[in-house]
Amino acid sequence: MPPRLSVSFIAGPSGPWSVEDLTPIVGGGLPAAPRLAVYEGNEALNANYAWVLRGVTSHERYVERVERERLVAREPGLGRAEATRAALIPIRKSEAWWELPQDERRAIFEARSRHIAVGLDYLPAVARRLHHCRDLGAPFDFLTWFEFAPSDEAAFDELVARLRKTEEWTYVEREIDIRLAR
Amino acid sequence: MPPRLSVSFIAGPSGPWSVEDLTPIVGGGLPAAPRLAVYEGNEALNANYAWVLRGVTSHERYVERVERERLVAREPGLGRAEATRAALIPIRKSEAWWELPQDERRAIFEARSRHIAVGLDYLPAVARRLHHCRDLGAPFDFLTWFEFAPSDEAAFDELVARLRKTEEWTYVEREIDIRLAR
Repeated sequence: MPPRLSVSFIAGPSGPWSVEDLTPIVGGGLPAAPRLAVYEGNEALNANYAWVLRGVTSHERYVERVERERLVAREPGLGRAEATRAALIPIRKSEAWWELPQDERRAIFEARSRHIAVGLDYLPAVARRLHHCRDLGAPFDFLTWFEFAPSDEAAFDELVARLRKTEEWTYVEREIDIRLAR
Repeated sequence: MPPRLSVSFIAGPSGPWSVEDLTPIVGGGLPAAPRLAVYEGNEALNANYAWVLRGVTSHERYVERVERERLVAREPGLGRAEATRAALIPIRKSEAWWELPQDERRAIFEARSRHIAVGLDYLPAVARRLHHCRDLGAPFDFLTWFEFAPSDEAAFDELVARLRKTEEWTYVEREIDIRLAR
């Protein structure tokens, strides 16, 4: 398990990532900004920022032992030289989702939506880090950061398209797909 | 499910609850203070406070549908007139706990430690509200608040004694038992 990190995604005039596209999939979008910086820690904000999203890496909420072993065997780390494309996908799920007990959320997440199994189909091409922010009182529940090579962008498009057709995604009430390049 | 609340427990010279006892069960304690106030929301701090602990009510991490139905049928709300005794128990679990996948944490929590089943034995005498703070970067993972009548204090003592003997509690690396009266 990676160390627990507080991570800030700061959009504005500067940062190593160029914002190529910002598409609201469901619910409201975010202001346009040319660049994005990712800081580990609660970085102080420059006055010129357009928006900031913060989350924390945390323990697993649904993944079971055998699934973790499959993930760990195949998932790459962040920062690969060839991974010059990224996506930041903030998501908020509905109150109806959060009111479900753990067993029913798990059944929708994996038994019926195959969230982990679908993700495995895109490993090791797509690196991923999940940040939680629901308990922080943020407007989103999760911020997921993905990194991949330009030649894997079509595969990444397929991955998010498959997830968006699942039962789990019927509980997503806000989602923004932010694509980046460095 | 109750609304999501950010709750502050502020110990210091004032507040409706008198701190009767503050016992470190494992790990470090907290400074002594005569009174405690519980605020729903991020209450501004008076300069005289001794310590503050904050957490948020959140969705269930382990409870399944049938267990929730049993709990909801029996658990009382906070603020009963006769419940003039309370306990605030901050807990932090070890990294070894948080590194376990969900299925193994659930197995220890309920299949082997019977956390929910033991708690049910003390309903409706003991009212309870759980606050999460691990993802907030706090020194504790959970703050649990209990309310009961003076005549149920011995039953409450038995409840915490039973839980402290479980396998789950072998993962507790800091726990303080704070008893209060109003």
